[in-house]
Amino acid sequence: MADQFTPKPEHKFSFGLWTVGNRGRDPFGDVVRPALPPVDAVALVAEAGAWGVNLHDNDLVPIDATSSERDRIVKDFKSACDRHHIVVPMATVNLFYDPVFRDGAFTSNDARVRAYAVQKTLRAMDLGAELGAKIFVLWGGREGTETDACRRADEAVKRLREAVNYLCQYSIDRNYGFRLALEAKPNEPRGDIYMATTGAYLGFIPTLDRPEMVGVNPEVAHEQMAGLNFVHAVAQAWEAGKLFHIDLNDQVPGRYDQDFRFGSANPKSAFWLVKFLEDVGYDGARHFDAHAYRTEDYDGVREFARGCMRTYLILKERAKRWNADMEIQGLLEVPSSGSSGSGSLPARDALLAQNFDRAAMAAKGLAYERLDQLTMEVLLGVR
Amino acid sequence: MADQFTPKPEHKFSFGLWTVGNRGRDPFGDVVRPALPPVDAVALVAEAGAWGVNLHDNDLVPIDATSSERDRIVKDFKSACDRHHIVVPMATVNLFYDPVFRDGAFTSNDARVRAYAVQKTLRAMDLGAELGAKIFVLWGGREGTETDACRRADEAVKRLREAVNYLCQYSIDRNYGFRLALEAKPNEPRGDIYMATTGAYLGFIPTLDRPEMVGVNPEVAHEQMAGLNFVHAVAQAWEAGKLFHIDLNDQVPGRYDQDFRFGSANPKSAFWLVKFLEDVGYDGARHFDAHAYRTEDYDGVREFARGCMRTYLILKERAKRWNADMEIQGLLEVPSSGSSGSGSLPARDALLAQNFDRAAMAAKGLAYERLDQLTMEVLLGVR
Amino acid sequence: MADQFTPKPEHKFSFGLWTVGNRGRDPFGDVVRPALPPVDAVALVAEAGAWGVNLHDNDLVPIDATSSERDRIVKDFKSACDRHHIVVPMATVNLFYDPVFRDGAFTSNDARVRAYAVQKTLRAMDLGAELGAKIFVLWGGREGTETDACRRADEAVKRLREAVNYLCQYSIDRNYGFRLALEAKPNEPRGDIYMATTGAYLGFIPTLDRPEMVGVNPEVAHEQMAGLNFVHAVAQAWEAGKLFHIDLNDQVPGRYDQDFRFGSANPKSAFWLVKFLEDVGYDGARHFDAHAYRTEDYDGVREFARGCMRTYLILKERAKRWNADMEIQGLLEVPSSGSSGSGSLPARDALLAQNFDRAAMAAKGLAYERLDQLTMEVLLGVR
Amino acid sequence: MADQFTPKPEHKFSFGLWTVGNRGRDPFGDVVRPALPPVDAVALVAEAGAWGVNLHDNDLVPIDATSSERDRIVKDFKSACDRHHIVVPMATVNLFYDPVFRDGAFTSNDARVRAYAVQKTLRAMDLGAELGAKIFVLWGGREGTETDACRRADEAVKRLREAVNYLCQYSIDRNYGFRLALEAKPNEPRGDIYMATTGAYLGFIPTLDRPEMVGVNPEVAHEQMAGLNFVHAVAQAWEAGKLFHIDLNDQVPGRYDQDFRFGSANPKSAFWLVKFLEDVGYDGARHFDAHAYRTEDYDGVREFARGCMRTYLILKERAKRWNADMEIQGLLEVPSSGSSGSGSLPARDALLAQNFDRAAMAAKGLAYERLDQLTMEVLLGVR
Repeated sequence: MADQFTPKPEHKFSFGLWTVGNRGRDPFGDVVRPALPPVDAVALVAEAGAWGVNLHDNDLVPIDATSSERDRIVKDFKSACDRHHIVVPMATVNLFYDPVFRDGAFTSNDARVRAYAVQKTLRAMDLGAELGAKIFVLWGGREGTETDACRRADEAVKRLREAVNYLCQYSIDRNYGFRLALEAKPNEPRGDIYMATTGAYLGFIPTLDRPEMVGVNPEVAHEQMAGLNFVHAVAQAWEAGKLFHIDLNDQVPGRYDQDFRFGSANPKSAFWLVKFLEDVGYDGARHFDAHAYRTEDYDGVREFARGCMRTYLILKERAKRWNADMEIQGLLEVPSSGSSGSGSLPARDALLAQNFDRAAMAAKGLAYERLDQLTMEVLLGVR
Repeated sequence: MADQFTPKPEHKFSFGLWTVGNRGRDPFGDVVRPALPPVDAVALVAEAGAWGVNLHDNDLVPIDATSSERDRIVKDFKSACDRHHIVVPMATVNLFYDPVFRDGAFTSNDARVRAYAVQKTLRAMDLGAELGAKIFVLWGGREGTETDACRRADEAVKRLREAVNYLCQYSIDRNYGFRLALEAKPNEPRGDIYMATTGAYLGFIPTLDRPEMVGVNPEVAHEQMAGLNFVHAVAQAWEAGKLFHIDLNDQVPGRYDQDFRFGSANPKSAFWLVKFLEDVGYDGARHFDAHAYRTEDYDGVREFARGCMRTYLILKERAKRWNADMEIQGLLEVPSSGSSGSGSLPARDALLAQNFDRAAMAAKGLAYERLDQLTMEVLLGVR
Repeated sequence: MADQFTPKPEHKFSFGLWTVGNRGRDPFGDVVRPALPPVDAVALVAEAGAWGVNLHDNDLVPIDATSSERDRIVKDFKSACDRHHIVVPMATVNLFYDPVFRDGAFTSNDARVRAYAVQKTLRAMDLGAELGAKIFVLWGGREGTETDACRRADEAVKRLREAVNYLCQYSIDRNYGFRLALEAKPNEPRGDIYMATTGAYLGFIPTLDRPEMVGVNPEVAHEQMAGLNFVHAVAQAWEAGKLFHIDLNDQVPGRYDQDFRFGSANPKSAFWLVKFLEDVGYDGARHFDAHAYRTEDYDGVREFARGCMRTYLILKERAKRWNADMEIQGLLEVPSSGSSGSGSLPARDALLAQNFDRAAMAAKGLAYERLDQLTMEVLLGVR
Repeated sequence: MADQFTPKPEHKFSFGLWTVGNRGRDPFGDVVRPALPPVDAVALVAEAGAWGVNLHDNDLVPIDATSSERDRIVKDFKSACDRHHIVVPMATVNLFYDPVFRDGAFTSNDARVRAYAVQKTLRAMDLGAELGAKIFVLWGGREGTETDACRRADEAVKRLREAVNYLCQYSIDRNYGFRLALEAKPNEPRGDIYMATTGAYLGFIPTLDRPEMVGVNPEVAHEQMAGLNFVHAVAQAWEAGKLFHIDLNDQVPGRYDQDFRFGSANPKSAFWLVKFLEDVGYDGARHFDAHAYRTEDYDGVREFARGCMRTYLILKERAKRWNADMEIQGLLEVPSSGSSGSGSLPARDALLAQNFDRAAMAAKGLAYERLDQLTMEVLLGVR
């Protein structure tokens, strides 16, 4: 029953192995679903209509696998990907599950842990490269504190920089062609995580040895946990040429990391996001980093995956309709100014000499209530 | 009754005119205190023990003052500052009160508003320079949205960049020697404000024409409104050489902008902040951007000002005690590693060849509960 | 251009005088709209399609009006209401604007303030009764603290109880027939407000002398400021027979009180709310306690008012569609249990003897992902 | 090295088996500590100085233990308690870990699950009674939703009522003498949990068959997750005679459930809480529902337990000092009113005839800045 909201490869929808493979464990409850082997996860997302899968090293290869086990696993996985016409656009590294990382990986006080974390990442880069990934994501889930007694936060920044510089050099040395995408999160599983927002990483990147190789991977839920406007963060990253990847899901502000189905917590903010990505011509993966409710079996997981993509495509169609709406476009015109774009400030002396009529400039309403209500009606499909 | 917590000029405590002059108006209530003339505000903060006052242009000079009125006001104000041995280390511009800025100043859709906002800022820079200020703060309180229908957020970034570049050039042309400090806030008075966090500005600055002239002015309350760890933001700014100024106050996370007396909402997070500033040798102003409760008359305002400084000095003494505590220092040593600093990663081939014993590295507890409890006891004065 | 979403009197839409009359003042900015006389506000909401207006005493009658001024104002207002076929279903009292209430009204430490607050409320009840109101709302916006040093919080509860008992008796004595509706809010304008949530008032009411006269007035924004699920609070109130009134607007969680146009911050949570109210047959006023953006003139205010009602009616139509959707209804059936309603627990000894197969009961997925995705598609109008 | 902050039995400090036994698993990481057998947990808390331990049924007895296994385990446990002079003041039931409860226990749509949940609770009551507990806590961690499509929220309230009524009757029938204490939480592990705040339960209790048997168990972290003032909630419960038990820990607002060491996130709000409990003479258990950081081994867990109690006792001493401080007490006097207590409102006609001088009543500052700063200085030990 394909319709206009049926996903196709050109939509570049991808899912993490860990997303459809999430077994529903949480801080207060046990797993509710049996383990889903990676090759079955590939089949599931393919059947749902996705284009790609992404993975942490240990989503595929157990942390203590021997070299030959690893090679066999990777071979089977590649074969499953080929069979299902699934690509691996992004790879990442798990630096948070094992107890060795309980106080950080790249920022740990223990030099051995830092070294091990880098070594593990190099091997994850090898794996990602072997699978054809061109984006390598770094989420420092354990890089943080419960008490700021443990280290000075500026020292953590220095350690993080050393590690990322090391990784960039490795990608160059090995000719992997990776672009690194840094993913921020304010808290959970640590009390506070360093580099809490996408903005923090945008500030960090210019201090690196190879800033051109490094961008960001903003995640809806991570920014919304802090109650921030996600589109504003994405727009700043895009404008700086740093939107290398994106994690789509949903989240009620001010809560634990919910990783809900895309759009399901707040379809209006999801609409602005889809509209932005489509309007600017973002051509990277639309990656869903979410998981099914704990009430679901694997049929429910499949519905979850379909719903993520379907909602994206519905909102994309709504964005198109918004752009084509004559009344909306009329309201966006700024009649008082022939030069409303940027680059338009008068030269200094002319500007200083100018007289402005504040009252006149403030007199006319901007009709944003009408504009937003029209948006509501486009979104809800009554216009 | 001077004691070890009595403020002195070398502590560099400053208050905005708008802080002690705050009249207690809020969204649901009228003013509760009579207007405090700027010269009286200078007297008040001097008597309380401060070193400096800061100001928006219109804290001192009404927006519609004539040139001769302006000159007289400024002259009287300078004379009051001299009389009370008060300096003006920082100046800023009010781009949020007048209705003309209701949809932004530098980022407004109306080119006339953008031009007027820049003109107003140039004049505020003239004023600041005349008063001897070397830091010029920009808080874009109206640069934001209630509906993202009104403009694309990346366009706002471009407009903001154009304005800041213009201002830098003006400071150079006039030989003012200003360093600009950008102040982030996530929301209020706009539904969402662009450049929501200090990190966002750290990412924005490297994209400017003169990044070396521009830093940040983090504010406790603004970062904590979003539930973020303020010390982490300050540390990143400091490490990047961008901590040009700081706004001290307090705030319960996830609420309206409270601007409480420094340390009063959470003395423990205030402790980490004071400790960081003192440990790294931050030598800028300790500026309080807070105001007295609406229950207070001007005696209460004076107590409020005293309390801000006194709490800072108590926490500074506690930080010193923490640093001198032998048990605490012992817990901070990392025995397993002779090379726990940064710059310590092994060369690539050596690293790849290394074997790590994860279980051994994870076996030993880090004694952070003890460390944090000792911190509590230093803070509470029982140790 | 009437359509199926055009408001009619039977929809019982009402607006506060203070909502369309809001002039756009906020903590950082001046008023942006001229004052709107009450009679003009009546005309505005009537033209937009509303059924009623509500008011605080001082929305209509200035706090220092003489008796004859008051009578003239009331007469003119009643005449305007009649002319525009507008009713006054609810009245309330302003116990927050005047500086006398800066540390509370009914809970103030000053017995004179408490007495004055009660006197002012009695007069507001007189006014409400004269205008035909049957619901009297109490929002204790100043009943709270910035520092819990000022009084013991249980003492505040006692004072509040004394006042509400007094008001109930007055309504009885005067034969006004009022039902009192208590409105909770967690903070703003106070640091913390007593009785922070609708639940707190539901706990308070049974401790009153006349609990049957007193219910709640939950507000979307107030509950969502604390990040709470509003429908759950409303449902508890409804189930307890205490949903006497409701305040509709919208709000992003964890922020200042935004009072946005109904549904505009999150149409999905607004959908669940409308669905609940319609499903249970709530027949009170649908009161909008919101205001237009500060970017608007009075044309924008009118659009704002229209948008509130229109979105409600769109969501009501969506709720009807949801109820009629066969696939949705099928998913809601619980096949494993012929007795899924309440009242169904086995008798004690039978229950203790029963054997349960946990694994079997946990095996089947609940299809909530599908159910929620279908909800999304009904909401977005593609189903 | 006993000092004035050494815990003694009369302080009634208790810990859950699950708190010191927490193994450090979280949503992103594995366990970091080996399992701690219940008898060893008893030894640990006894050594740290506690008076009691509390437990969920399955903290002690595995969910699938046979009857004889259960009896042996209970016997060994009682013997360990006796040996270490540890009491079991409270018991509770785990209705959240097993997958059977993935969509609720008492409020599940599946009548079999509801029946099983009640049966399991009856047996947990048997266990608690056998161990001497007089308080039975109910935390409905899975009673909630991710999508409100699944059931009407008022239906959930009805199911919850039916279950609690059933449990009360069981306690009466068996002569257990339990008082039930209901524990609220806004979210996590569910998207939203019904009965989100302590207030909601205070509203629910009067609708029960035996309201006198049922009270609340407020938890610091649960209320603070929603950004609410915890002392206000506790005070309302106390004033209503419903503070049957309390869960002490700490939490930064607007985050995942952190369960930090008591006082460690915000010592000032912890101070107001301790002061309230001591001032009113609360004589129930001071129960710590918290756990050690994931960075700790069992030495760290012991320090964590000691720290909880020690901080409580430090704050208790500070509260005593606060009460004895003459300046503080002087500021709390309300000079303008000989009748500042409750019960003081004038009779109706007298009140209506009274003239109030608003300006005079609002003129004098209330000195709350001074009062709060003095509190800071008592708290920080410089006064």
